Amino acid sequence: MDKLEMRHTLLAAKARKKMSWDDIAGAVGMSPVWVASACYGMNSSSVDVAHKLCDVLEVDSDVATALVAFPTKAWDEAIPQDPFIYRLYEVVGVYGETLKDVVQERFGDGIMSAIDFTMEVDKIEDPKGDRVLLTLNGKFLPYKSW
Amino acid sequence: MDKLEMRHTLLAAKARKKMSWDDIAGAVGMSPVWVASACYGMNSSSVDVAHKLCDVLEVDSDVATALVAFPTKAWDEAIPQDPFIYRLYEVVGVYGETLKDVVQERFGDGIMSAIDFTMEVDKIEDPKGDRVLLTLNGKFLPYKSW
Amino acid sequence: MDKLEMRHTLLAAKARKKMSWDDIAGAVGMSPVWVASACYGMNSSSVDVAHKLCDVLEVDSDVATALVAFPTKAWDEAIPQDPFIYRLYEVVGVYGETLKDVVQERFGDGIMSAIDFTMEVDKIEDPKGDRVLLTLNGKFLPYKSW
Amino acid sequence: MDKLEMRHTLLAAKARKKMSWDDIAGAVGMSPVWVASACYGMNSSSVDVAHKLCDVLEVDSDVATALVAFPTKAWDEAIPQDPFIYRLYEVVGVYGETLKDVVQERFGDGIMSAIDFTMEVDKIEDPKGDRVLLTLNGKFLPYKSW
Amino acid sequence: MDKLEMRHTLLAAKARKKMSWDDIAGAVGMSPVWVASACYGMNSSSVDVAHKLCDVLEVDSDVATALVAFPTKAWDEAIPQDPFIYRLYEVVGVYGETLKDVVQERFGDGIMSAIDFTMEVDKIEDPKGDRVLLTLNGKFLPYKSW
Amino acid sequence: MDKLEMRHTLLAAKARKKMSWDDIAGAVGMSPVWVASACYGMNSSSVDVAHKLCDVLEVDSDVATALVAFPTKAWDEAIPQDPFIYRLYEVVGVYGETLKDVVQERFGDGIMSAIDFTMEVDKIEDPKGDRVLLTLNGKFLPYKSW
Amino acid sequence: MDKLEMRHTLLAAKARKKMSWDDIAGAVGMSPVWVASACYGMNSSSVDVAHKLCDVLEVDSDVATALVAFPTKAWDEAIPQDPFIYRLYEVVGVYGETLKDVVQERFGDGIMSAIDFTMEVDKIEDPKGDRVLLTLNGKFLPYKSW
Amino acid sequence: MDKLEMRHTLLAAKARKKMSWDDIAGAVGMSPVWVASACYGMNSSSVDVAHKLCDVLEVDSDVATALVAFPTKAWDEAIPQDPFIYRLYEVVGVYGETLKDVVQERFGDGIMSAIDFTMEVDKIEDPKGDRVLLTLNGKFLPYKSW
Amino acid sequence: MDKLEMRHTLLAAKARKKMSWDDIAGAVGMSPVWVASACYGMNSSSVDVAHKLCDVLEVDSDVATALVAFPTKAWDEAIPQDPFIYRLYEVVGVYGETLKDVVQERFGDGIMSAIDFTMEVDKIEDPKGDRVLLTLNGKFLPYKSW
Amino acid sequence: MDKLEMRHTLLAAKARKKMSWDDIAGAVGMSPVWVASACYGMNSSSVDVAHKLCDVLEVDSDVATALVAFPTKAWDEAIPQDPFIYRLYEVVGVYGETLKDVVQERFGDGIMSAIDFTMEVDKIEDPKGDRVLLTLNGKFLPYKSW
Repeated sequence: MDKLEMRHTLLAAKARKKMSWDDIAGAVGMSPVWVASACYGMNSSSVDVAHKLCDVLEVDSDVATALVAFPTKAWDEAIPQDPFIYRLYEVVGVYGETLKDVVQERFGDGIMSAIDFTMEVDKIEDPKGDRVLLTLNGKFLPYKSW
Repeated sequence: MDKLEMRHTLLAAKARKKMSWDDIAGAVGMSPVWVASACYGMNSSSVDVAHKLCDVLEVDSDVATALVAFPTKAWDEAIPQDPFIYRLYEVVGVYGETLKDVVQERFGDGIMSAIDFTMEVDKIEDPKGDRVLLTLNGKFLPYKSW
Repeated sequence: MDKLEMRHTLLAAKARKKMSWDDIAGAVGMSPVWVASACYGMNSSSVDVAHKLCDVLEVDSDVATALVAFPTKAWDEAIPQDPFIYRLYEVVGVYGETLKDVVQERFGDGIMSAIDFTMEVDKIEDPKGDRVLLTLNGKFLPYKSW
Repeated sequence: MDKLEMRHTLLAAKARKKMSWDDIAGAVGMSPVWVASACYGMNSSSVDVAHKLCDVLEVDSDVATALVAFPTKAWDEAIPQDPFIYRLYEVVGVYGETLKDVVQERFGDGIMSAIDFTMEVDKIEDPKGDRVLLTLNGKFLPYKSW
Repeated sequence: MDKLEMRHTLLAAKARKKMSWDDIAGAVGMSPVWVASACYGMNSSSVDVAHKLCDVLEVDSDVATALVAFPTKAWDEAIPQDPFIYRLYEVVGVYGETLKDVVQERFGDGIMSAIDFTMEVDKIEDPKGDRVLLTLNGKFLPYKSW
Repeated sequence: MDKLEMRHTLLAAKARKKMSWDDIAGAVGMSPVWVASACYGMNSSSVDVAHKLCDVLEVDSDVATALVAFPTKAWDEAIPQDPFIYRLYEVVGVYGETLKDVVQERFGDGIMSAIDFTMEVDKIEDPKGDRVLLTLNGKFLPYKSW
Repeated sequence: MDKLEMRHTLLAAKARKKMSWDDIAGAVGMSPVWVASACYGMNSSSVDVAHKLCDVLEVDSDVATALVAFPTKAWDEAIPQDPFIYRLYEVVGVYGETLKDVVQERFGDGIMSAIDFTMEVDKIEDPKGDRVLLTLNGKFLPYKSW
Repeated sequence: MDKLEMRHTLLAAKARKKMSWDDIAGAVGMSPVWVASACYGMNSSSVDVAHKLCDVLEVDSDVATALVAFPTKAWDEAIPQDPFIYRLYEVVGVYGETLKDVVQERFGDGIMSAIDFTMEVDKIEDPKGDRVLLTLNGKFLPYKSW
Repeated sequence: MDKLEMRHTLLAAKARKKMSWDDIAGAVGMSPVWVASACYGMNSSSVDVAHKLCDVLEVDSDVATALVAFPTKAWDEAIPQDPFIYRLYEVVGVYGETLKDVVQERFGDGIMSAIDFTMEVDKIEDPKGDRVLLTLNGKFLPYKSW
Repeated sequence: MDKLEMRHTLLAAKARKKMSWDDIAGAVGMSPVWVASACYGMNSSSVDVAHKLCDVLEVDSDVATALVAFPTKAWDEAIPQDPFIYRLYEVVGVYGETLKDVVQERFGDGIMSAIDFTMEVDKIEDPKGDRVLLTLNGKFLPYKSW
């Protein structure tokens, strides 16, 4: 079973069980964004979490093998088209240079890791319209000289 | 004075005055990321803040006019190359679809605005390596049907 | 049933029932452009409207589930090729910068939302050749500073 | 004087005279969107209007020659980046196929002309946030068979 | 039956009946280039011609329905690769700007329509090598000012 | 003097002398499209014609040297943007495959040369709107087998 | 049978019969490069040669029909990736401008035809490493003026 | 002096001295294609040949330094536009796969080097039209396994 | 059996036999990177090694035929997306020009062959985090002049 | 002084002083590849090393400021064209997937850092042709789950 079939199986099971990502994340003891990304095939899971996921969603254990496999990460569109994802791309375009300067001024020459990295989504209720809060947390990696 | 000349003038003044973005932001009463983006030419400033910026950095008042002008936002590379900015692009590619699902499950069909939007950078000190914390805060906009 | 299968089912039913988009829109109490876009899979429908659509077009209720699902919006061609759609793209290219200036002069720095957005098509009969009238109506969103 | 120099001259004169596009359009008896597009170099003007524009903005008559010249229309980015213009591009991507179907159902096989074409911008005041109304009006051109 | 299946059916019937485009065009009373383009799925046919085409080529009447449907015109390659088609693309690249100037000098600012448009192919016999004569005939559309 | 400078010189002289391409073509005994393409730098001229062109337009003889030089043909945009030129590109896209089939059915496997090639523009007056007639005339080159 | 199926059939037959391109070329009286290109679907064959090819490779006569059909030439990658083919592309990039100048200096303004064209491959044995000799032979086509 | 300035200097000197590439190549004892490519900045020259070139063309000795410098080879267009160079690109596209198969059948798995490589141009006079003969000669490099 | 089916067969057999690339490489007497690349279809194997590979992994001998076949090397993405592979691409972008200068200063004008080439992967254990050591070893090929 | 001017200054000084990268690296106590990359503007230097570099190359101290500045890394061509750099790109394309599998099998799911990274160039003398040895050494970064 490859990651694509795994994903279809897991999303179908999630719909059948009417569980939200929060429900599943709570049941397996991980964060909702990470759990979703693992089910979408963008992260590999530990054996232990993979089995918990399969138990919670009541799918076969070969799905667990697929969850544990190391993914080849890819996305279809160099410039995303769906408006939700495009807005994130636009933020990178508009603020990328600014963020680089602000972060490097505080941390020195280096980058924020996208590997030693976590991300959370929160909802801020607001009478003028609820707000989405995305929190990206990545280790700062200084450039090495040699 | 166009936004490009304005940017060169402001960055040169910032270097000359040895002020950090935090210093400048504190002096004008705005956030460091927003102040930097306005000086980079990616956001327009109110007249009041523009004059404060020019006072703090000791530049001519025609810079203030350029700060107030409405920018045409653009970035050079559809796929960024600098490693700092590329990592953000990679996060959008790897997690875009996941975030869309997690957010829309909680908020309904819609997007996180990149216009009614703020962003903060924080430093989390950590003996295993400091961490960068980026916080994106955007109004949720539900799709309309008609 | 995914959005693609849903679309094929709905367009086949529409042809079978010989109903126009105006007919269907009238029957479900929504606008023709929105109804067509929902059937094409570019917008999600409320549960109520989805069931009305299925009743009107006499298709199974699993089509309603697909109509309610939140779409991932995408289009095949970064630069459209069909002459009808290309002309719209050309209008954006030729008049985009002009519109930005005219709108921002009247409203301030910001954008016209493509999310809190409606669109209508009208026919203006004219002996020299009928005219198409497209009306785009989007909420103005001012940029935030912070 | 080429269209680029003409544009810089006209925009500088407009700023100097503190006239809005509405002011200029009123003074020359044309529509604001068309006047702006002619000043941006995207449309050619009649000799008469060109001279009125030069009078109103108090610029030299060689600007009028440039206004009358037939432009080569071009835009920098196949996929626009400025958020204002991108949202229009997104509308074409999301609704292009839908519009083609709705319009062709009413008019037959053909296109809406982008040449025999006019466009207006209006502001709808609304306590929940003002709205931008764009009206595109193009002659319907039926495909010929031969 | 979609345009692709229609095309395969019609081309197979044409081969089976050993008719040239000239034969078919003569039989249905239309021009060979238009008839071929309709069979390739790039133009819609009137009901009357569609039935004549189906009679001449002895195919089922559902092919006629497909011939009458309004096509979404598309081509695979932004820059064509087949040498026959590339040479036409090259002519547009090499002579496009020249043609624009020569035509607009004679007709004013505007375009040659590709919608209100016909095209013919002729063979000029020549002992030094026969020549292909392509004749493009499009309505001149002047730009509108408003 | 390179082709670009030559072009600017010749177009300025043409404007100064208020001659049309037809006037110039008549004066040098060549066709208007070819004369325009040579002045735009897309074709090389014989020495004799080059000197006639310089005499007619009253420019220096180093322009003649530039006219005689062999050009490197290039165009800016793989997909043209100006509506006049785009319509020609669209014709190639929509009818390219059709033309290949119609021509090869009559001539055999081969191409229409874009090198041993001429082109004319004519105006057909028509009360419903004048029409542009483009005539492309290229030698048919059969593929060789060996 | 289309060119793709033809190609698979012919390459499978070639493997089964353990014949080299030289063997096949010798048997049908044509050159190995041309024979291979016809079997790959990039050239059309005369009826006579097509039948010889089918006899030699012992395949059905419908393969001959496919060999005689006029191909639509296409290649997958604008910039080739396989190292063998990329090196040829690199030669065109590195030496293209040089070759144009050397050839046009000797022949006048024009091109080397890729249609009235033949190509041979030879092996030069060399103790320091054998060498590949590619010989391209194309008719010179002078540009026409008119 | 960089390669670009060197090239302009050498081509101007060549024009001034009215020497052909054959003349220059004869004078310095190298091949015309290589000499042209070195003058165009696509190959580095030995010190000895560089000085001979400067003597023959009567240019300053700093041109010799530029001729000896190791070039960074680049070309402007991934897909060439000039018809002369495009035809070579087309040959690679049409015959690339065929050549790979014919060469590898004779030599084994490997490539023809574009580095240990020479190229010649010859003219074959022919009453039906002269022919260009391009000869590419590259060392065969077998893939290594390890 | 083509290279794609071969690859699936070999990777499935490797998983079934729970052998690492090091295990397989040891068993067939070749290097792990080369063995993996041959199994992925990016290199051809000698007949002898192919049979050893099939024995070790217990697959049919037609897999051996596919291993011996000469591959057409290709990769999906001009700019890789998987973070592991992108980092290598980034190294080429950031250090390419530097490496060219350092290597050519030591070796003269030429390249490092990617054909007469080997590569090894090693693991350096380190308490601060293990390190990956990639060793690329390619024959230096000097440019030829002629 | 920006990185580009710094680079020109440093490369000119290097040529004037006739020092190799090895000489400079030895004088400042860093590795040749890193020193070259810092002078090319692709890495920032410590203040101490920057001053040593300026002393060794006898350039003004404002060059040191530019050496210390944090670079925005960028490269011109998504697909490199110079044969030296292209071969490295080709290695990433041909072996990227293989390396990912071999490395992740040994280290687990993660990447080789291009930030906590060093690189060396060595020359292996060989009578059959010297060989280039590139050694890439990057910290392994395991993906985090959360």
